[in-house]
Amino acid sequence: MNALDLETAILSDDGKALIILDQTLLPNRIEYLHLTKKEEIWEAINKLRVRGAPAIGVAAAYGLYVVARDFQTSDNASFIASLKEVASYLDTSRPTAVNLSWALKRMVRKAEENAEKNVDEIKDILRKEADGIRAEDITISRSIGEYGFSLLRPGSGILTHCNAGTLATAKYGTALAPVYIALEHGWKDLRVYCDETRPLLQGARLSAFEMQHAGVETYLQCDNMVSYTLSKGLVDIIFVGADRVARNGDFANKIGTSGVAIIAKHYGIPFYCCAPSSSIDMSLASGSLIPIEERNGDEVTTMWYRERMAPEGVKVVNPAFDVTDHSLVTGIITEKGIAYPPFDEAFTAMGIV
Amino acid sequence: MNALDLETAILSDDGKALIILDQTLLPNRIEYLHLTKKEEIWEAINKLRVRGAPAIGVAAAYGLYVVARDFQTSDNASFIASLKEVASYLDTSRPTAVNLSWALKRMVRKAEENAEKNVDEIKDILRKEADGIRAEDITISRSIGEYGFSLLRPGSGILTHCNAGTLATAKYGTALAPVYIALEHGWKDLRVYCDETRPLLQGARLSAFEMQHAGVETYLQCDNMVSYTLSKGLVDIIFVGADRVARNGDFANKIGTSGVAIIAKHYGIPFYCCAPSSSIDMSLASGSLIPIEERNGDEVTTMWYRERMAPEGVKVVNPAFDVTDHSLVTGIITEKGIAYPPFDEAFTAMGIV
Repeated sequence: MNALDLETAILSDDGKALIILDQTLLPNRIEYLHLTKKEEIWEAINKLRVRGAPAIGVAAAYGLYVVARDFQTSDNASFIASLKEVASYLDTSRPTAVNLSWALKRMVRKAEENAEKNVDEIKDILRKEADGIRAEDITISRSIGEYGFSLLRPGSGILTHCNAGTLATAKYGTALAPVYIALEHGWKDLRVYCDETRPLLQGARLSAFEMQHAGVETYLQCDNMVSYTLSKGLVDIIFVGADRVARNGDFANKIGTSGVAIIAKHYGIPFYCCAPSSSIDMSLASGSLIPIEERNGDEVTTMWYRERMAPEGVKVVNPAFDVTDHSLVTGIITEKGIAYPPFDEAFTAMGIV
Repeated sequence: MNALDLETAILSDDGKALIILDQTLLPNRIEYLHLTKKEEIWEAINKLRVRGAPAIGVAAAYGLYVVARDFQTSDNASFIASLKEVASYLDTSRPTAVNLSWALKRMVRKAEENAEKNVDEIKDILRKEADGIRAEDITISRSIGEYGFSLLRPGSGILTHCNAGTLATAKYGTALAPVYIALEHGWKDLRVYCDETRPLLQGARLSAFEMQHAGVETYLQCDNMVSYTLSKGLVDIIFVGADRVARNGDFANKIGTSGVAIIAKHYGIPFYCCAPSSSIDMSLASGSLIPIEERNGDEVTTMWYRERMAPEGVKVVNPAFDVTDHSLVTGIITEKGIAYPPFDEAFTAMGIV
C-alpha cells in the first residue's frame, strides 16, 4: 500500500455516496465509510473521522452534493432552499474549521449562480464544483510540495509536528508534501521524525503511519524529545502546517508547534510553515488575535488509556492550538512560493490580499 | 490524606520488612508492599515500584537490612560475606541509579568497620545506618525546599517536569520540596503546573497526584504545552530535579527537561535545577560526557494504551534523559545553598569536591 492511495474524501463511482477513510481507526484499521445521509456526514466531520482543514472542505463539498442529489423536487427555488438548509446544518459540525464553511458557501453560491437552470443541471454543476474543490486542493498541495522539496538535500532529516500530510488534504498534504515530491524524484534516503503530538496523537497515529507506508525511514518520538533530536544533529529542517496565518507571519497550528519553533531557533535549525495561501488572513495584524480553542481535559487524562492516568479532580490545561511568533519562522511555504520575512511585504508581493 | 504521609520506603515496626508504596499503581490505587526476600526487593526496584534516586537509596538500605536480619549465622566473617553477596545482587536491579550502589556500599562499609562486634550488634548497627540514610535524605530535601521557598512569592505559578517530589525521596522531594515548605508556612495560593512527562507519565501519575493530595492548585498539561503556558504568563518559576550534575552546571534529567529550559529562556522565566550536592560530579567537566540510556520503543507506542497507537515497524526515539546546557540554568539549588553561574566556582565555594 502506498500512502497516496489512501483517499481522505472522494465521491463513489455511482455518485451516490461520499467515501471517507475513517481516521479515528488509524493506525490499526483501514476502513472506508460510505456516507449518504446528512446526519452521517455531520457525525463524520464532528468526530474527526475526516480531519485536516483541506480534507474537511472536500468532504463537505461532496457531502453536500450527495445529499442534494437525493432531493426529489424539480422546483429550482425549493431545491436551492433545501441546499442552503443542509449547508447550514453541515457547517455546525466543526465550528472552527475555516475550510468547512468556505467549501459549503462556494457550493451554495455556485447553485445560486445557476438558479435559472433545471434542477438536474444544477446537480451536475454541483458535482463538478466539488470535483473542482478537490482537484484544486491537490494542485495546491503539489505546488507547496515542490517549493518545500527545493529546500531538501539527499539524506535530509525532516521533523514534523501533528499531521499535515496526505491524510489532512485531498492528496500530498502541506508539511509532508515535500517528502512525497522527493519520493517521486526517486529520493530514498530521507528520514522523517514525527512528534507523537499529544493528546490526540496525530503524529503517531497519522503522520508516522503515512510516512511508514510511503516507504520513508520514519521515526516516532514523544513531543518532549525535540530538543534531544535537534541537539544530536539528526534534523536538518522542520516543516509544520498551519490553521491560520496572520499578516505579520504569526500562525496558529496544533498545540506544541510554538515550542518546536523556539527549540529550532535555539539550535539554528530552519523552521518552515507550509500552508495554502487561503490560510493567510491579511485582515489579521498578528497571531495574538487568533482565538485558541480549549478542549476537554479527558483527552489528556483518560483518552486512549486502559485506565485513567491522572488523579481525579486535577485541573487540565488543554488548548488545541498555539501561536508561533513570526520571529521564529524561517519561511512560509505556499502554492505561490516561499515567503521570507518581512512576511507582510512578501505576502503582498505574492498577490495575497 | 496528605501527600507527605505517603511513605516511599520505610521499615516495618517489627523491623522484619521493607515497606514501599507501589508507585506503578498510582494514581489509581494506593497499595503498600511488605518485602522481606531479596528477590522481592530486587523486583520492586527493577520494576520502578519504588523510584527516584534518593528513594531507591533508602529502599536498598532497608532492603539489605531486612535480608541480613534473617541470616542465621553467628560467625562475623560469614555474615559479612553473605551481606556483600546480597548487596551485589541488589545492585543489579537498576544499573543506572547512582544512589542505589552508593547506599549499598555505605551499608557494607559500616558492617566492615564493625566486623569485630558480634552479629546481633552488627545487625543493629545496620538498622541504624539505614535509618540514618533515610533521616539524612529528609534533612537534605527539607533544606533544598527552604532555599527554593526563598524564591517563591505568594501566588507564584510553578512548573515542574517529571516527578522530583516526595515520591522520589524519603520525604519532601527536591523540585517539589519548596512547595511543601510553602504549605508549612500556610501559603495556600500557589499554582503548580505538571508536565505529564511522556512516555512514563511520572508528571501525570505522580507529581499531579502528590500536589493534588497536598492541597495545592494543580494543573496537568501535555509536554508540548509548556510554550503555551509560559506565553500566557501563568508560570513564574520552574523547578526540576537532576540525575547528575557536571562541574560546569550542565545536568542530566528526565527527557524533555532541556526543551523546557530552552523555552523558559525564550520567555525569560527563571529555571532552577534542584538536587542534593551528592548529585554534583566534580570529576565530570561537562554534560556531554553523561551517557544517555535509550529505552524500549514499546513505552512510546504501546504502554498504558488499550491498543497500539503507532504503525507496526516504525522506529522509535526513546532516550530516558537529556542534558540541559548550563547556559540555560538560572541556578542550582542544593542543601548547601543556591549555586549561580559560573557554577564550577560556586560549587567549589560551597565546599563540593
